[in-house]
Amino acid sequence: MNRNDQQAYDRGTSLFSPDGRIYQVEYAREAVKRGAPSLGVRTSEGVVLAAQRRTSSPLMEGESIEKLHKLDDFLGAASAGHVADARRLIDDARTAAQRNRLRYGEPLGVETLTKTLSDEIQETTQVGGTRPFGAALLVAGMDGDDPEAAPRLFQTDPSGAPQEWRAVAIGSGRDDIQEFLEDNWSDDLSLDDGIAIAVQGLFESDDELGAESVSVATITSDGYESVSEDAVAAVIDEHVDDETDADDAE
Amino acid sequence: MNRNDQQAYDRGTSLFSPDGRIYQVEYAREAVKRGAPSLGVRTSEGVVLAAQRRTSSPLMEGESIEKLHKLDDFLGAASAGHVADARRLIDDARTAAQRNRLRYGEPLGVETLTKTLSDEIQETTQVGGTRPFGAALLVAGMDGDDPEAAPRLFQTDPSGAPQEWRAVAIGSGRDDIQEFLEDNWSDDLSLDDGIAIAVQGLFESDDELGAESVSVATITSDGYESVSEDAVAAVIDEHVDDETDADDAE
Amino acid sequence: MNRNDQQAYDRGTSLFSPDGRIYQVEYAREAVKRGAPSLGVRTSEGVVLAAQRRTSSPLMEGESIEKLHKLDDFLGAASAGHVADARRLIDDARTAAQRNRLRYGEPLGVETLTKTLSDEIQETTQVGGTRPFGAALLVAGMDGDDPEAAPRLFQTDPSGAPQEWRAVAIGSGRDDIQEFLEDNWSDDLSLDDGIAIAVQGLFESDDELGAESVSVATITSDGYESVSEDAVAAVIDEHVDDETDADDAE
Amino acid sequence: MNRNDQQAYDRGTSLFSPDGRIYQVEYAREAVKRGAPSLGVRTSEGVVLAAQRRTSSPLMEGESIEKLHKLDDFLGAASAGHVADARRLIDDARTAAQRNRLRYGEPLGVETLTKTLSDEIQETTQVGGTRPFGAALLVAGMDGDDPEAAPRLFQTDPSGAPQEWRAVAIGSGRDDIQEFLEDNWSDDLSLDDGIAIAVQGLFESDDELGAESVSVATITSDGYESVSEDAVAAVIDEHVDDETDADDAE
Amino acid sequence: MNRNDQQAYDRGTSLFSPDGRIYQVEYAREAVKRGAPSLGVRTSEGVVLAAQRRTSSPLMEGESIEKLHKLDDFLGAASAGHVADARRLIDDARTAAQRNRLRYGEPLGVETLTKTLSDEIQETTQVGGTRPFGAALLVAGMDGDDPEAAPRLFQTDPSGAPQEWRAVAIGSGRDDIQEFLEDNWSDDLSLDDGIAIAVQGLFESDDELGAESVSVATITSDGYESVSEDAVAAVIDEHVDDETDADDAE
Amino acid sequence: MNRNDQQAYDRGTSLFSPDGRIYQVEYAREAVKRGAPSLGVRTSEGVVLAAQRRTSSPLMEGESIEKLHKLDDFLGAASAGHVADARRLIDDARTAAQRNRLRYGEPLGVETLTKTLSDEIQETTQVGGTRPFGAALLVAGMDGDDPEAAPRLFQTDPSGAPQEWRAVAIGSGRDDIQEFLEDNWSDDLSLDDGIAIAVQGLFESDDELGAESVSVATITSDGYESVSEDAVAAVIDEHVDDETDADDAE
Amino acid sequence: MNRNDQQAYDRGTSLFSPDGRIYQVEYAREAVKRGAPSLGVRTSEGVVLAAQRRTSSPLMEGESIEKLHKLDDFLGAASAGHVADARRLIDDARTAAQRNRLRYGEPLGVETLTKTLSDEIQETTQVGGTRPFGAALLVAGMDGDDPEAAPRLFQTDPSGAPQEWRAVAIGSGRDDIQEFLEDNWSDDLSLDDGIAIAVQGLFESDDELGAESVSVATITSDGYESVSEDAVAAVIDEHVDDETDADDAE
Repeated sequence: MNRNDQQAYDRGTSLFSPDGRIYQVEYAREAVKRGAPSLGVRTSEGVVLAAQRRTSSPLMEGESIEKLHKLDDFLGAASAGHVADARRLIDDARTAAQRNRLRYGEPLGVETLTKTLSDEIQETTQVGGTRPFGAALLVAGMDGDDPEAAPRLFQTDPSGAPQEWRAVAIGSGRDDIQEFLEDNWSDDLSLDDGIAIAVQGLFESDDELGAESVSVATITSDGYESVSEDAVAAVIDEHVDDETDADDAE
Repeated sequence: MNRNDQQAYDRGTSLFSPDGRIYQVEYAREAVKRGAPSLGVRTSEGVVLAAQRRTSSPLMEGESIEKLHKLDDFLGAASAGHVADARRLIDDARTAAQRNRLRYGEPLGVETLTKTLSDEIQETTQVGGTRPFGAALLVAGMDGDDPEAAPRLFQTDPSGAPQEWRAVAIGSGRDDIQEFLEDNWSDDLSLDDGIAIAVQGLFESDDELGAESVSVATITSDGYESVSEDAVAAVIDEHVDDETDADDAE
Repeated sequence: MNRNDQQAYDRGTSLFSPDGRIYQVEYAREAVKRGAPSLGVRTSEGVVLAAQRRTSSPLMEGESIEKLHKLDDFLGAASAGHVADARRLIDDARTAAQRNRLRYGEPLGVETLTKTLSDEIQETTQVGGTRPFGAALLVAGMDGDDPEAAPRLFQTDPSGAPQEWRAVAIGSGRDDIQEFLEDNWSDDLSLDDGIAIAVQGLFESDDELGAESVSVATITSDGYESVSEDAVAAVIDEHVDDETDADDAE
Repeated sequence: MNRNDQQAYDRGTSLFSPDGRIYQVEYAREAVKRGAPSLGVRTSEGVVLAAQRRTSSPLMEGESIEKLHKLDDFLGAASAGHVADARRLIDDARTAAQRNRLRYGEPLGVETLTKTLSDEIQETTQVGGTRPFGAALLVAGMDGDDPEAAPRLFQTDPSGAPQEWRAVAIGSGRDDIQEFLEDNWSDDLSLDDGIAIAVQGLFESDDELGAESVSVATITSDGYESVSEDAVAAVIDEHVDDETDADDAE
Repeated sequence: MNRNDQQAYDRGTSLFSPDGRIYQVEYAREAVKRGAPSLGVRTSEGVVLAAQRRTSSPLMEGESIEKLHKLDDFLGAASAGHVADARRLIDDARTAAQRNRLRYGEPLGVETLTKTLSDEIQETTQVGGTRPFGAALLVAGMDGDDPEAAPRLFQTDPSGAPQEWRAVAIGSGRDDIQEFLEDNWSDDLSLDDGIAIAVQGLFESDDELGAESVSVATITSDGYESVSEDAVAAVIDEHVDDETDADDAE
Repeated sequence: MNRNDQQAYDRGTSLFSPDGRIYQVEYAREAVKRGAPSLGVRTSEGVVLAAQRRTSSPLMEGESIEKLHKLDDFLGAASAGHVADARRLIDDARTAAQRNRLRYGEPLGVETLTKTLSDEIQETTQVGGTRPFGAALLVAGMDGDDPEAAPRLFQTDPSGAPQEWRAVAIGSGRDDIQEFLEDNWSDDLSLDDGIAIAVQGLFESDDELGAESVSVATITSDGYESVSEDAVAAVIDEHVDDETDADDAE
Repeated sequence: MNRNDQQAYDRGTSLFSPDGRIYQVEYAREAVKRGAPSLGVRTSEGVVLAAQRRTSSPLMEGESIEKLHKLDDFLGAASAGHVADARRLIDDARTAAQRNRLRYGEPLGVETLTKTLSDEIQETTQVGGTRPFGAALLVAGMDGDDPEAAPRLFQTDPSGAPQEWRAVAIGSGRDDIQEFLEDNWSDDLSLDDGIAIAVQGLFESDDELGAESVSVATITSDGYESVSEDAVAAVIDEHVDDETDADDAE
C-alpha cells in the first residue's frame, strides 16, 4: 500500500485499512521503539527488571526519569516509549493494586493486573476521540509472599494484547537485546545470573553506558528491591567490561 | 468500483457504499484472515477446538498467546484475528456466563451466548465513533451437563451475524482448511476422530507445525478439557506424518 | 447527477441531495437487494412466508441462516439484506412483542409492531452518527387467535416507511418474483395455494433451488408453524418441476 | 452561485450560504415535490383534504400508503414528500393531541398543533447532527365541536414556517393545482363543492387517476370522516370526466 | 479576501477569519435582507410598528404571514428574515414575558427582554453545532402601564448585539427606508404622525403595496393594538398617494 | 509561513501551528482591532475610562452602543471589538460582582474579577467546539470605598491573559493612542488631568470626533460616575481644539 | 518527513505520526520556546526561581506579567510560554495546594503537586477536543517547614512528563542558559550563590536586561519570598556587570 493510500486509513483508532490493519496502533509501537530500552528476566528466584535512563543534561535528577517502578510490595514495572503515557499507565497500575488490597484484603496478581491494563489499552484502540498509549510496560512480580509463588513477567503493547515471557526487551534496540536474551536465558538462572544477563542485555543496544544510566530492580519473595548504583557498577565491571576485553582479545 | 470511489465510503462503520456494502466490516474480516487459524469440529460426543499458536520468540510463554479459552464449565471458544479485540470478546463472554449463573443459577446456553456477543459486535458496525471488532470467535459447548445435551458449535464474524456449524475454520488458510473439513467430516465422528481431523486441518494451512504450536481442547458432557502437548504430538505422529509419508509414497 | 456530485451528498443519513434524495437510504436498499430473496403471500386462511437460504458450505447448519422467524404465537417475520442488521430488528420485534404481553396481557398487533419497527428505522435515517438498517422485513400475522382476526402482511424498508401487502417479495430477484405474484395472487387463495405460489415465486429468482434451501412458514389462527423440508420438497415436485416440464414442453 | 460554490454550503443544516440561504432546507423542499400531491380546501362547513396515492404494485394495500390521517376527533392531516418523515410528524401530531386531552381535558386547537409541529421542524434546521424533515403536512380541523368553531387549514414546510390557507396544494404538480384552486375557490363553498374542487384539483397534476388512487376526507363539526371510494368515483364521474369531455369538445 | 480564502473560514460559527470576522453571522444578516421589510417609529405617545406582508398566493391567510406580534400587554415585535427562525425568537420572547409575570408579578421591561433575546442569539454565534438565527427583530413597548413609562424601541441582529433606536428599518430595502426615516423623524411626533411615517417608509422599498400587504400596530400606555386594514388604507390614501401624485407633478 | 500552510492550523482553538501559535486567538485580536477604541487612565484619585461610540445612523440611541459599563458600585468596564461578545463578558462580570456581594457580603475586587473573566476566556481558547471571544475589556475600579483603596486598571485579551496597566488603549488606532498615553501619563495625575488625557487620547485615533461620540466615566472612592456630554464638550474645547489650533499654528 | 506528510498527522492530540510522534505536543513546546525564559536553581538552603518579564509598554504594571508565583507557604512556580495557559496551570496548582490543606491538614508535597499537574497535562495530549497546554512550569519548594525538608525543583512539559532538576531553564534561549547552569552549578551553593547564578543565567539569553525586567524569588524553610528589585539590581551590579567588564577586558 503506498503512502497516499495508507494516509487514508491512519488518522484514527476507529478505522481498519483495507488489509485489516489499524495504523494508529502500529504508529504507537513506533513511539515505543523511540524510547530507551527496558528489559525483564525471569529467574528461578524472582524477576529482574533493568532499564536505560537517558538524561538530556547532567543537572537532571536521574530518579525523575526512572523507568522502573514499584507498584506494590511484590509488583514492579518497567516502561519504554512516550514517558507521559507510561506514567499514566503506571499510575493506573498502582491504583488498581491499592484498590485490590482495599476491597479484597490481598495483593493483586501479576496476570490480573496485566489484563486490567490491557483492557484499558485496548479501549483506546477501538473507540474514537482518543489515541492509543505510546508506551509498553513490563509487569513483573510474585503473586504475594506465598513461598510457593512463582515469578511472572508480562508485557503490554499498544494494541492491548498481553503476553507472558521468560525474558523480554522493549524499546530501542529491542531486537538485538532480545536475541542476546534468547542466547543466554535458561530456566535455572539464579537472581544474580539474571542481573548479569539483564545488564549485559542493555549493553547490546548501547555499549557506552555508565552505571548511572542503568537501573536495575528485583522482585522476589522478599519484595521489590532496587539494585544500588554501586552494585550495578560492579556487575558492569565483572560482566560487561570483561566481555569487552574478551572481545578485544579475539 | 475503483480504489478512489471505494475510499469515499470505507472510512466509517456508519456508511453504506453505493452498492450496499459496509467496507469497514469487510476490512475487519481481513484482520481475521491475518491471524493464525483456529477451527472447531462437532462430534457425536462433544466439540473439538484447535488453533495454531504463533510465537515471535522462543522466550514467550505459549500460554500467553493461547487462542483456546475456557469460558465456563461447558463452554469454550477459539479465536482468530486482532488479538486484543479477541481478548475483549472473550472477557465479555466470560462475564456473560458468570452473570447468567448468578442471576438464574444455571449455565448460559451456547446459542444464547453467541447471540449476546453478536449483538455487541453488530452495535459496533452501525453506530459511529467506533470500529468493528477485528476478530472472529468459535463458540463451542454443551448446554450444561444434561446427558441429553447436544454439542453445539457457533461462529461470530465482524458483521455480527452468528452462524451454527458442524465444523468450521477461521483465520489464515481458512479456505483450504474448510475444504479439508468438508471432505472429512461426518456426523458419526468420535471425539478422537474429531481431534485427529482438527489437528490434520491445521496442517492444511501450515505443514511445518510442531506439537508446541498446536492447541487442542474438547468440550463434552465432562466439561472443558485441554489436550496435552504429548497427546497432540501423538496425534501428529499417527495422523499427520503418516499421511505425509503416504503422500510421499504416492 | 454525476458520480462526483452524488458523492458530495451520500456520506451521511443527515443530508439531502439537491434533488431531495437521501442517498444512504438508497444504498441501504442496495444492501437489501444483495440478500437472498424472501416473500410473503396473504391467503384467506393466514399468511405464508418463504425464503431462500444461502449456505457458503455444506457444513453450515441451515437453521443458523434461517430467514424466517417466529416473533410471538401469531407473529412471524421474513428478512432480506444485511444479516446482522436483520437480526437486530428481529430481536427488537421479539422484545416489543414480549413487552406488550407483559404490560397489557395481550398479543401485539401486526400493524402496531410494524410501525414500532418503522419508527426505529426512520430514526436511523435522520439523526447523524449512525447508518440506516441494511435490511428489510416482512412482518406477518394474525391479530391474536380471535377467529375474526384477519391475516395481515407488512413490509418495512430502510427508509422506515411501512407498507401493507397482499403478497410481496424482497431481496435479490425481487422484481421477477413480484411480477409472478401479481400474475398469480387472488384473494380466495387457500393456505396450500399460498404455499405453492410462495415456493414457485422463489424459483423465479433462482430455478436451481433444492428443498433444503427453501424455508416456508405459515401464520394462521392456529399460530406460527414451520413447513417441513419434506413438505417443501413435495410442493417443489408438484408445482415447480411440473411447471418446468411444462415449460420444456412448450 | 455555481454548483461548486453551492456545494460548499449545502452539507448541513447549521450553515448559511453567503447569500443567506440554508440549502438543506431547500433540498428538503425538493423531497416534498417528489411526493404525490395532497391538497386542502376550506369550505363554509369544514375542510376537505384530498391526496393521490401512488402504488408500486397492484398487490399493495392502498391504505398502507394512505396520505390522509385522522389525528383526533376534529383534526386531520394530509402529507406529501418523504413517507417515513411524514409518518413521524403524524405520530408526533397524534401524541400532541392525546397529551392535550389528558392534561387539559379538551381537544388541541388546529393552530396550536401546527405551531407545535413547526417548532419541532425548525429545530431540525438549526441544530447540527440531524437533517430537516423531507415532508410537508396540511393540518386541518375544527377547534372542537363548538358550533361556533370555524374550519381552519394550515401547512407546515421543511423550514418550520407555518402558514394558514383557504386552499392549498403540496407535492408534485403543486403549482398547477394551486393555480386551479385560486381560480375556483370562493368563500361560500359548500362541503360538496369543496370535495368537487379537491378532486378536480388532483387531476390538474395527473389526468389519468382512478378513484382508487384518490383519497378524500372531511373534517366538519361532525368530526373527521373518510369519503368512500364510491363517492369519490361519483365525483370523478360528475366533475372530472364532464370537464374532460368539455375540454375535448372545445 | 478572495472567495477561496473566504470559504476556508465561513463554514461554522465557531471560527474567526484572519481579519477577525465571523462569516456565518454576516451570512445570517443576508438572510435578514432577503425578507420583506419591517420598521419601527418611536413617537411621543408610543411606538408604531409596521411591516410588509408578502403572500405567495391570494389563497394564503394574511395573518399566517403576520410579521407583527403582540408579546405581552405592552410589548410587541416586528420581524424580518428567515420566517421560522423569527417565529422561534418570538416564541421565546413570549415565554420570557409570561415567566416574568409569573415569577415577579410584573411585566417584563422592553430592554430586559431585548437583552434576554440577544443573549440567546449570541450563544448561537459562538458555540459550534448550531447556526445563527437568520432573523432580526424589532422589540417595542412601554415598560408597563405606568403613565411615566416612556416608549422604547430596540433591534436585535444575528450577532446578538442589541441597539436602541428612535426609528429603524430591517429587511429588504432597509437602507432606503432608513434614509426616509432619518429625513422625517422628529422627537415630537404624535402617534398618528408615526403611523403616517411608518406606512410611507414601507413604500420607499416597494411603491406598489396595497393596504392588504401592510401591517401596522401601536404600543402605547393603552397597550398593544393592531391598526385595521381600513385605517391603513386611509393612511395610504392620504399620505402615500398624495406624495406620489406630488412626485408625478414634479 | 505562507497562507496555505497557515490555513492548515487556523481552523480551531484546539490546534497549535508548527511554530507554537494559536491562530484563532490571533484572529480574535483582529476582531478587537476592528472595533472603535476604548482607553483607561489611572490617576491618583481614581480611574478614567473613555470610549468612542460609532453610530450607523443619527436615529440610533447612543446609549445602546455604550461601550462604558457600570459593573458594581466601584467597578466599571470599557470594551472594544465584537459587540455581542463584549456584552456577554460584561454580563458575566456583573453576575460575578452580584454573586460576590450575595455570598460574602462585600464588593468583588478588581483583580479577582479580571481573573475570573480571564479564566472564562482562556477556556474558550483550549477546548474545541467554541471560538474565542472577539472582544477585549478594560476592567477598572477601587477595591470598595475603603479610603485606602488604590485605583486599579486591568485589561483582558482574547487569549485570556490579564494585564494591569497605568494607562492603556484597545481597539482601532490602539498603537497611536498608546504612544500618546506613554508620552503624557505621570503618576501624579489628578482626575481632571486623567479626563483630559483620556479625551485627547481618543482624538489620536480619529481627529473628527464630536462630544456626542465620546463617552467618559470615572471610578473613584465616590463610586462609578458618567461624565456628561456637556462636560466632555468642555474638555474637547479646552484641550483638543486648543491643541489642534496649536498644531495649526506650527 | 516532508511538510505535506507532516500536516497529515499534526492536526490533533489524538494522532500519532507514522514515526510515533505527537506533533501537537511538539508544537506546544514551540509555544514554550516563544516565551521569555524562566529558570530554577536548587541550593543547599532552598530553591531560587528567576524569570525575565517582557513588557510591551512602559505603562504596563510589571506585576501583572509576573512569571513567579507563590503557590502555598513553601511552594512556588515559574512559568514560560503561552501566558493564559500558564495562568490556568498556576490556578490549578493553587487549588490543589489549598485542597490538600483542607482535606489532610498538611501542606502538599512538591513532587505530588508536580505529578498532579502532569496528569492534567497528559490528559490534554491523549483525548480529542482539546489542545495541549502551551506552557511549561518550574515547581519548586520545601516539603513543609520541617527542618529536615530538602529543597526540590521540578519541571512540567507539554507532554505531561515531569522531571526533577538541580537547576533548569525553560523558554527562549533555554539552551544557552542551561549550558551556563551546567558550568556553574554545584551542590554546595548557598542561597546567595544561587541568586547570583540565577540572575547571571538570565543574561545568557538577553544581555541588555534591567533590574526591573528580572524577577527573583526564593523558597526556603522560611517560606516563599520575593527578592526586591533593589536587591536584584545589586546582584546585577556585582555579578553581571563585573563579568561583562571582565569579558570586555579580555
